[in-house]
Amino acid sequence: MSARAQFLSDNAAAVHPKVWEALRRADEADSPYDGDAISQQLDEAMTDLFGRECTALWVATGTAANCLALATLCPPHGAVVCHREAHIEMDEAGAPGFFLHGAKLLLAEGEHAKLTPDAVRRVVEPIRDDVHQVQPHAVSVTQASEYGCSYRPEELRALRNTCDERGLGFHVDGARFANAVAFLGCSAADAIGGADAFSFGFVKNGAMNAEAIVFFDPEAAGLARYRRKRAGHLQSKGRFLAAQVLAMLGDDLWLDNARSANSAAQALSAHAGERLLHPVEANEVFLACTPAERDALRAQGFGFYDWGARAARFVTAWDTRHEDAEALGLAIANL
Amino acid sequence: MSARAQFLSDNAAAVHPKVWEALRRADEADSPYDGDAISQQLDEAMTDLFGRECTALWVATGTAANCLALATLCPPHGAVVCHREAHIEMDEAGAPGFFLHGAKLLLAEGEHAKLTPDAVRRVVEPIRDDVHQVQPHAVSVTQASEYGCSYRPEELRALRNTCDERGLGFHVDGARFANAVAFLGCSAADAIGGADAFSFGFVKNGAMNAEAIVFFDPEAAGLARYRRKRAGHLQSKGRFLAAQVLAMLGDDLWLDNARSANSAAQALSAHAGERLLHPVEANEVFLACTPAERDALRAQGFGFYDWGARAARFVTAWDTRHEDAEALGLAIANL
Amino acid sequence: MSARAQFLSDNAAAVHPKVWEALRRADEADSPYDGDAISQQLDEAMTDLFGRECTALWVATGTAANCLALATLCPPHGAVVCHREAHIEMDEAGAPGFFLHGAKLLLAEGEHAKLTPDAVRRVVEPIRDDVHQVQPHAVSVTQASEYGCSYRPEELRALRNTCDERGLGFHVDGARFANAVAFLGCSAADAIGGADAFSFGFVKNGAMNAEAIVFFDPEAAGLARYRRKRAGHLQSKGRFLAAQVLAMLGDDLWLDNARSANSAAQALSAHAGERLLHPVEANEVFLACTPAERDALRAQGFGFYDWGARAARFVTAWDTRHEDAEALGLAIANL
Amino acid sequence: MSARAQFLSDNAAAVHPKVWEALRRADEADSPYDGDAISQQLDEAMTDLFGRECTALWVATGTAANCLALATLCPPHGAVVCHREAHIEMDEAGAPGFFLHGAKLLLAEGEHAKLTPDAVRRVVEPIRDDVHQVQPHAVSVTQASEYGCSYRPEELRALRNTCDERGLGFHVDGARFANAVAFLGCSAADAIGGADAFSFGFVKNGAMNAEAIVFFDPEAAGLARYRRKRAGHLQSKGRFLAAQVLAMLGDDLWLDNARSANSAAQALSAHAGERLLHPVEANEVFLACTPAERDALRAQGFGFYDWGARAARFVTAWDTRHEDAEALGLAIANL
Repeated sequence: MSARAQFLSDNAAAVHPKVWEALRRADEADSPYDGDAISQQLDEAMTDLFGRECTALWVATGTAANCLALATLCPPHGAVVCHREAHIEMDEAGAPGFFLHGAKLLLAEGEHAKLTPDAVRRVVEPIRDDVHQVQPHAVSVTQASEYGCSYRPEELRALRNTCDERGLGFHVDGARFANAVAFLGCSAADAIGGADAFSFGFVKNGAMNAEAIVFFDPEAAGLARYRRKRAGHLQSKGRFLAAQVLAMLGDDLWLDNARSANSAAQALSAHAGERLLHPVEANEVFLACTPAERDALRAQGFGFYDWGARAARFVTAWDTRHEDAEALGLAIANL
Repeated sequence: MSARAQFLSDNAAAVHPKVWEALRRADEADSPYDGDAISQQLDEAMTDLFGRECTALWVATGTAANCLALATLCPPHGAVVCHREAHIEMDEAGAPGFFLHGAKLLLAEGEHAKLTPDAVRRVVEPIRDDVHQVQPHAVSVTQASEYGCSYRPEELRALRNTCDERGLGFHVDGARFANAVAFLGCSAADAIGGADAFSFGFVKNGAMNAEAIVFFDPEAAGLARYRRKRAGHLQSKGRFLAAQVLAMLGDDLWLDNARSANSAAQALSAHAGERLLHPVEANEVFLACTPAERDALRAQGFGFYDWGARAARFVTAWDTRHEDAEALGLAIANL
Repeated sequence: MSARAQFLSDNAAAVHPKVWEALRRADEADSPYDGDAISQQLDEAMTDLFGRECTALWVATGTAANCLALATLCPPHGAVVCHREAHIEMDEAGAPGFFLHGAKLLLAEGEHAKLTPDAVRRVVEPIRDDVHQVQPHAVSVTQASEYGCSYRPEELRALRNTCDERGLGFHVDGARFANAVAFLGCSAADAIGGADAFSFGFVKNGAMNAEAIVFFDPEAAGLARYRRKRAGHLQSKGRFLAAQVLAMLGDDLWLDNARSANSAAQALSAHAGERLLHPVEANEVFLACTPAERDALRAQGFGFYDWGARAARFVTAWDTRHEDAEALGLAIANL
Repeated sequence: MSARAQFLSDNAAAVHPKVWEALRRADEADSPYDGDAISQQLDEAMTDLFGRECTALWVATGTAANCLALATLCPPHGAVVCHREAHIEMDEAGAPGFFLHGAKLLLAEGEHAKLTPDAVRRVVEPIRDDVHQVQPHAVSVTQASEYGCSYRPEELRALRNTCDERGLGFHVDGARFANAVAFLGCSAADAIGGADAFSFGFVKNGAMNAEAIVFFDPEAAGLARYRRKRAGHLQSKGRFLAAQVLAMLGDDLWLDNARSANSAAQALSAHAGERLLHPVEANEVFLACTPAERDALRAQGFGFYDWGARAARFVTAWDTRHEDAEALGLAIANL
């Protein structure tokens, strides 16, 4: 696949040179699992970033991060409210059902794959408070959303309030969290809105195979440690995962990479005008596009996914070349 | 930790230079998950090695490999026979119960943590064939065993026969398979004895975080693909796992590394004499050792784990320096 | 609660005298579990009724019947298509997620809580055949539906064909199956439309606490036997459950009771006219009703459930007195 | 089966006339599930019996009672310590693994199938407090034990203390609790020794299909309510289960029945002398018996189970005729 073709996804991008350096530095044998010196730095790094005490666990995938986080918020007989198009519902092969022992996802509606307090209430309110119906225990949102749209801090605070009113836990899936923060220009803390548990994605943003789960309740983190091992996610050379996370956080590499990807997304969508199906608030662009138009773009060497019959999805990554994004932007303008 | 100290375990050893090279070569973006060119080569590489058609899936940990393999051999209401000291029983935090939805492990006895047909029968025969008792569906053995002892090809064939007589599946946990093959001097195929599913370990032998599950039944492999994703073990940049596996198999690196580790184990146990608790048939050495003797060794800079009150476990790895192993061997002789 | 008040549900009705007689006759001690002479007659009784070889297991509840049946049709990583308002989705507390180890329910739309081939296809077709999305393995319909509407034999055959085209199993939840058969006037076989597994309800129709699961594949039945015990549903005095089922089947008591309930439902809805929200094809009546109208009916001593803000649900049972149903019918006419 | 033959088990005995009366009185329709007037009396009846506030849930089987109770004491990643021959280990088809989502049973040794504090410690102490090993969360004992032996109040208090020292929950499986209390002559409270959750058996003692789970922590009971429904164990005509429990508790029927069974067991073992394998402290008798001796007894019309190659198990029930027990006692004496 030529570099130019690659607007398919950010999930198979190259690994950033600084991550490679950190991996190499981590080679020297150390204690196994997460007893090594590098893994031991994660809590502090995340506490610094979020400005409150937190506990961070590395895992290799976003699916594992989401599900280990949710399992601390929802019992097997409960439910998690999420958007109908949430990744946990659409693209994780039923992993929440596996990790949460059969707990349900309750699907809410919402523009741009974003939840609102009203959308949550519409799902939650009709549920009778009796043993015949599965009771909601948590809400999960994706920052940025599956349509590349970012929750504003006040939107998250409102959702957090809704959760508090109803005794629900609050989880943020941050597979593209860096892109959201880069777009919002706010603090990391403001961009998770008081979540109880947070899946911090790095793989789509320059890492090889490391994500972090951030807990603000040490007891929840303690439970997640047992569950991580039990799910086969406690790697013996965990230092290589911790090293990736620290490299991404160091010198704000996570933000730099996200800014680069976001800027490429802006370039490619600059002339999209009415075609835009969602505002571009991260590194994903969804455009109305006929099959013939998609063919025309592909004939020029651009790679991307169809999104249903009359749309297309374009994703940029930290390593997208801006001249490619601009060329695609022009090609779109010329359709 | 100084290199000298490190007889604690092979599970946190350095990554072999050839693995690093393969990782770097895999950096260029490719298809995500296991659709990339490197992952696509795994089946053929394993088919070549085992001399019969097989399907191979990468995963990051041995626990995931074991449990995804076993889940294809045993339903939730069934049981797997294993040794009382098997890794799946002792050190995987109940992962088999998680991945197999509550299936049981039935514990058998056996010298050197090895099972025999008799040991299997003693567990299986008293079970009434009715719905009140959990029925056995598979047998799992570890090659080399948890005490560093290797099953001979004829021992495995006998176990396979016992399985066949009773309609049981047969799984081999090969966390230290390379060490067993290096010791036995037989083919890879002979060293798994007709297993239905095989966990092929690389992490303890020079890889960073890649193991392989080898299936000889394509339908089982197909099921495992769904379960791998559902367990959060389908990495999006899977090419980096495939690259490690191929690098280990290329030029017999897996065997070279294992030979080096085994040879260090021989060196360190050369003068152990009566202290030896188990024959040294891989890269682990278990010695009778008083607390005072253990203190004496540690005072000389050697690191290792206590094994109960009056024994110690020493593990060598591909990167153990032979002079260190010899020095330890002498220190043991001088106790 | 006065008898008159009772249009709340059929699920707490009295036990039919013939069932009481059968229970008393079953008192004499016999073999435990399902080894007794009465339990041993179930297969034959069901085979006679359905005109093809079948295996029947008693259980105490419809939830257990549905979930033990579905567990033979769908693996933990799969999904079952059902109506958005199906009992398994709305009123079983997530039991399918428990019994099927996290498998999903995929919700389809359809008038009168009935599925159609098109409705199934609309759910199934967008699912990509890859490991990221939960794959459908079965379809479940309720006969009669949650709105008291009965599938015609040809509707079921069409659904069965849709299942066959896509390799899906087919389950019928027959909590009110007798009412459907009584309404349709067809054979029991035609009213399940070639289902693979069938939950045959008796509790709402005159039994105390016995339902049957009917399997047409003996291997599936064999699996369900293990799972029944494992779920704590193998009663030691199972003869008392078998006796109820046989009493209901004997002399067509199941049909007589259902006819009586259906006829009461016709009486109470005879003058409902435009108020009717669904055709009355079993023993449930759903009427548009303002809160004031509901108050008026309750003031006359009738008991029933609100159904949202502007409707009401009335359920008749085998023991509903027809004069009460007629009185209610008149009261509705006079609203 | 002739009444005389029946020393096979108490689990298929007849239903006591007072239970039949209570069932008939419960026939009148009432609220479904456990909202009826009879179910609502359970808490008070149990509170009276145990002398402290408790919450009681009916279920149909002992397996369901045990597993719903244990699920409130042990998370999916934990373990329950029980005797190697405990019913939950040997005869419940892996139900604990199902209800507890893969939690483990840790098997302890002990004479007469009874646990001691030492036996618990021998299992618990070697477990490293790290995430690789499954941590114990509860202890479960059977009162009377699987060999018909009763824990003295002080033995239970000692076990409770051991649990408290280690933060373990304490469950008592009382499938034959009445027999233990009748033997001990102590209060019900003393015979459960401060258990957190208690499975109170009635089916083996004159009921048809009702057991009770007694919780002393209302929060645990609340969780169990959701899980009971989710496991398909919330019967809609629950009044028939509650009625059985209340009938058994009324006028001490549970104790009268147990005394009768115990007395028959004493009669049949009166001349057993050296043959006795366990003290007779409930309604079960285990005797050394050669195959020829067993044949001789069977030739006289007595029915019982072989217990391995050279023993036999005899169980009496509330309806065992004492002349039969005495006749068997004489037959044993004459062997």
